[in-house]
Amino acid sequence: MSKYSVILGNLGNTCDRFLSTGYKDELPKETLIRQASEIDGVEGIELVGTWDVSKDNVDAVGEMLDKYNLRCVSIIPDHFSQKRWGRGCLAAKDPDIRKQGLDYTMECVEMARSLGCTNLNIWPGQDGYDYTLQSHLIEERGWMAETIRKAAEAAPDIKFALEYKPMEPRNFSFMARASDTLLMAKEIGLDNVGVCIDTGHAFIAGENVSESIVILQEYGKNKLFHMHFNDNYDNWDDDMIVGSVHFPRYVEMLFWLKETGYNGWYSMDQYPYREDAQGALRESVMFLQMIESKLTNEVMDQIRNIVRKGDAVASQRWLRETFFK
Amino acid sequence: MSKYSVILGNLGNTCDRFLSTGYKDELPKETLIRQASEIDGVEGIELVGTWDVSKDNVDAVGEMLDKYNLRCVSIIPDHFSQKRWGRGCLAAKDPDIRKQGLDYTMECVEMARSLGCTNLNIWPGQDGYDYTLQSHLIEERGWMAETIRKAAEAAPDIKFALEYKPMEPRNFSFMARASDTLLMAKEIGLDNVGVCIDTGHAFIAGENVSESIVILQEYGKNKLFHMHFNDNYDNWDDDMIVGSVHFPRYVEMLFWLKETGYNGWYSMDQYPYREDAQGALRESVMFLQMIESKLTNEVMDQIRNIVRKGDAVASQRWLRETFFK
Amino acid sequence: MSKYSVILGNLGNTCDRFLSTGYKDELPKETLIRQASEIDGVEGIELVGTWDVSKDNVDAVGEMLDKYNLRCVSIIPDHFSQKRWGRGCLAAKDPDIRKQGLDYTMECVEMARSLGCTNLNIWPGQDGYDYTLQSHLIEERGWMAETIRKAAEAAPDIKFALEYKPMEPRNFSFMARASDTLLMAKEIGLDNVGVCIDTGHAFIAGENVSESIVILQEYGKNKLFHMHFNDNYDNWDDDMIVGSVHFPRYVEMLFWLKETGYNGWYSMDQYPYREDAQGALRESVMFLQMIESKLTNEVMDQIRNIVRKGDAVASQRWLRETFFK
Amino acid sequence: MSKYSVILGNLGNTCDRFLSTGYKDELPKETLIRQASEIDGVEGIELVGTWDVSKDNVDAVGEMLDKYNLRCVSIIPDHFSQKRWGRGCLAAKDPDIRKQGLDYTMECVEMARSLGCTNLNIWPGQDGYDYTLQSHLIEERGWMAETIRKAAEAAPDIKFALEYKPMEPRNFSFMARASDTLLMAKEIGLDNVGVCIDTGHAFIAGENVSESIVILQEYGKNKLFHMHFNDNYDNWDDDMIVGSVHFPRYVEMLFWLKETGYNGWYSMDQYPYREDAQGALRESVMFLQMIESKLTNEVMDQIRNIVRKGDAVASQRWLRETFFK
Repeated sequence: MSKYSVILGNLGNTCDRFLSTGYKDELPKETLIRQASEIDGVEGIELVGTWDVSKDNVDAVGEMLDKYNLRCVSIIPDHFSQKRWGRGCLAAKDPDIRKQGLDYTMECVEMARSLGCTNLNIWPGQDGYDYTLQSHLIEERGWMAETIRKAAEAAPDIKFALEYKPMEPRNFSFMARASDTLLMAKEIGLDNVGVCIDTGHAFIAGENVSESIVILQEYGKNKLFHMHFNDNYDNWDDDMIVGSVHFPRYVEMLFWLKETGYNGWYSMDQYPYREDAQGALRESVMFLQMIESKLTNEVMDQIRNIVRKGDAVASQRWLRETFFK
Repeated sequence: MSKYSVILGNLGNTCDRFLSTGYKDELPKETLIRQASEIDGVEGIELVGTWDVSKDNVDAVGEMLDKYNLRCVSIIPDHFSQKRWGRGCLAAKDPDIRKQGLDYTMECVEMARSLGCTNLNIWPGQDGYDYTLQSHLIEERGWMAETIRKAAEAAPDIKFALEYKPMEPRNFSFMARASDTLLMAKEIGLDNVGVCIDTGHAFIAGENVSESIVILQEYGKNKLFHMHFNDNYDNWDDDMIVGSVHFPRYVEMLFWLKETGYNGWYSMDQYPYREDAQGALRESVMFLQMIESKLTNEVMDQIRNIVRKGDAVASQRWLRETFFK
Repeated sequence: MSKYSVILGNLGNTCDRFLSTGYKDELPKETLIRQASEIDGVEGIELVGTWDVSKDNVDAVGEMLDKYNLRCVSIIPDHFSQKRWGRGCLAAKDPDIRKQGLDYTMECVEMARSLGCTNLNIWPGQDGYDYTLQSHLIEERGWMAETIRKAAEAAPDIKFALEYKPMEPRNFSFMARASDTLLMAKEIGLDNVGVCIDTGHAFIAGENVSESIVILQEYGKNKLFHMHFNDNYDNWDDDMIVGSVHFPRYVEMLFWLKETGYNGWYSMDQYPYREDAQGALRESVMFLQMIESKLTNEVMDQIRNIVRKGDAVASQRWLRETFFK
Repeated sequence: MSKYSVILGNLGNTCDRFLSTGYKDELPKETLIRQASEIDGVEGIELVGTWDVSKDNVDAVGEMLDKYNLRCVSIIPDHFSQKRWGRGCLAAKDPDIRKQGLDYTMECVEMARSLGCTNLNIWPGQDGYDYTLQSHLIEERGWMAETIRKAAEAAPDIKFALEYKPMEPRNFSFMARASDTLLMAKEIGLDNVGVCIDTGHAFIAGENVSESIVILQEYGKNKLFHMHFNDNYDNWDDDMIVGSVHFPRYVEMLFWLKETGYNGWYSMDQYPYREDAQGALRESVMFLQMIESKLTNEVMDQIRNIVRKGDAVASQRWLRETFFK
């Protein structure tokens, strides 16, 4: 079995633009961490900056993780939920904001180090634009790469996984698709800069995630640094339980993750607005483990044969007979 | 088990706009009929006008169906593949074309009668528009209803199932969604005019098919006359094998079909462009029968309880434990 | 020129799920009202319950509207931003919540009356579901109609405009499309229950808004009660400046609004997260007025002729020559 | 003004999967060429292999182009409308088919040379897959690059513009987006291999075309080799008249094409199924020229300022005041 983790905030209160105080009550951080530790198979935690961890509480958080025997898998710097980033952070038009974005990123590097964590998951949600003619596309994309390069050069011990998403909160993001983001990572040109695939983000980009995995691993030479799992209806980042909408594509994904030698975490990233969060995350883990448990060496060989034959009828039959009662 | 059928043309040659002569070879009609009869559980056939059946061959086709012990489930009048319908058929701006559309529909009524078939499945693919400001929306929608009313009034022994589809071949269809079409059926106001749901058409309309079933059966008082099954990626009518993309929604559909008392056919409507067609149809039937076989009285009760509780975690767990090995 | 209005909250602070405290600062209510009054052509205001108006401040708000010479066009009851509605309001599984939803709606009726306003715009954003098998679709849709019927029966002096939206905050809404909602309105069967079209909601439903207008006015006999205007990229409710993405469809809409005798308000409903809100609303009003000013009797006749001809080349030429410099 | 061209086949008969014989009549090739030459501003023609040009008629076609004073802008090899390519061409699983694909491509190189044309526009429509688990994504993507590399190495005098498209005729294409395709072009590593943007293909990929232009020109160092123009509703390749759905994005595109030094052709690629084809192409050209004629040095400066400010209200006002009467 692969290593499974969850994003801590998934267990907490979640809001949307209509109910900004959230659908649930706030729980103590230790409760969230304990809940994560109770999910069978989960060994790691991702921490979101500001929401979950900051300079001031990083030691306390580290102690709690230790207490519950969880590793910090990554820190996700808060490049998205502060008013100062409202018109961009790493690629902001204002050089002072970009400087603040860099400084804050380096703060997260420090937090990571103090937690024994070697990954920063960079999701620059505010970097993009909403309207036509709103961005100097050359300059701003350039600043984005430059800010990330500065951070990654200054922290060669930390891997920077760039998480792409086509839209939201901006109507267009600068890091929108697997290939866009790989191109930027290659432009940055550092070994410690790669890409994170969030399955739901890739669905709304119209990608077959398996192909995105292959592109990152082949064209990038193992540039797939991290994986976030969730499901959705293909048009928006609904952040749902894995398997609640789609099935065969997760089989294909898990095959290609193994086949291309991905050895990072399988991390759950959901927004269970109204659901029991622990249960929602547990269901996702169990769904993926149900698939993964089938991927024996023998079955891996079967799939290699299936994808080389390309017979859709045979593969649908195989899926039905292999997975369904 | 419900009654299963297939559309005959699904077994034949299929083309697209780039390869107009098709990806396969033409097979004799009897071969197609025999292939349909060989799919376990399939008892009925739908025939497309022009492609599968016409005044001239209807008797011969009837004999072949008898020979292979298949019933004619519906005739689908060819309102879409003749050059004269290129700018509309039942709702055409030209009254002479509408007249031809009506006359041809009545010809199909005659064919149906001679085959002992009581259903016409009306898919007026050419009735709609492509560009803004291209349709007098009041007049043309009115003509559509009028032509259908005339046909249905003249053939009270035949049920007319109106099959909606948001787009293709026109960018906008007049019968685009379940509710649009039910409104038109109610406006027409005849007992023998109802609606056909094609699952793939409903997916691209953004509908939850289960809710469309409920709307037709409740607001329409059993206006769901017919069901076409296939799967797709939610943005286009890919006409794929059932279950090749989605899973849970088919469980929900089959539950609501039973729950609302639908007693029509479960008909496969696919476009296996490059696949073994018989195999592709068989896989769809087997996938649906796999689900249907689970829907015992006890399980129907479980689902009633599940939908009343509305706990997404519990229902995902139930789906996983009930269906997956 | 038609009557133009804006939703007051559009001028205030706007948040999303990542930045729940909002991208802007909170402004005093009177400032928002003054700003609305300063937009040329705007004569009316829509007030959102809780956010803009409540029992406690309704008189004060009324005085401010008087001071700035603005009419209250509608009250939009807050059926969406309270934790108690998190799992539904008018259609909630819990009968006590439905009762609260009804009581609160009647409170809004009282507010409307005290402001001399005759419209409630009902947007039950929390009524729907997120996951497959999460809703008893018959019962819950029935409760929805029942709650609305009770309110509308009890307030025959108030028009209830049902505003549909396919998704958000729920992944599926019960009032999702023009025709679904008209069917529900007809089922409710009261003269004072009709439909509100929000152009952006209709875009994401894949509707040609002009056809939705026609369906509501023709099948519903003038059931189009209200119009909300904004623009988006067709896949999500971006709530952008009118004309910032699309152009020809607004010409067609304004034609059909006039042609079908709509005499309600043209109300702006936007979410200018990061923009100068007054400017964003003003631009929308000016864009629509630019189109409307062209729709003289002579031009209306030209368009009648264009839609009857259906020649896309001619209509594109006409659009270019009529509107572009 | 830029150089404008059209694809010859746009003027001919067009079919879809329902009406495979087409909505129009076949016209003599010379008529099509003459019609193209009659569109003001059009100086060039793109020829589709098989449909428009083959070894046997290439000289005759060349003479007709001369007669009507048109240049051959590109040849588009027929990698999509032959039964042998039904399961792939340049990336086919069958090595013999790939060999045939290469040989045929080299035939097109010869035709191009004999017409004095220096561009091949490569659109490998059949290279991709439809179902999950149907493709060995590493091998097949590798074969694709290999076949193209062989052709491009063998013809260093010819530029190969790779035209991407997310889907159709396959549900997933190997060359699906600007960045995927640039990555493949970079992997191939030859100066004469670049990318063609078809605006409609980019819309359905969810791209802001302006950003795709910038990515190709910046990350690729002038890898934008060719441009195809059309419009659509963002979810399918409707191949409509430019400007019939969208407006502001074309202004932004033309700005960035100039700004990044693109000096290739502005070529129309439409499918006027039911329209007067010459008129439909002429309208597109006139719409683009209407925009281009406004892009004086002074206006280019205004736009540079607008995109650096990023004020959406100001830019919408500027668009309205600059372009609308």
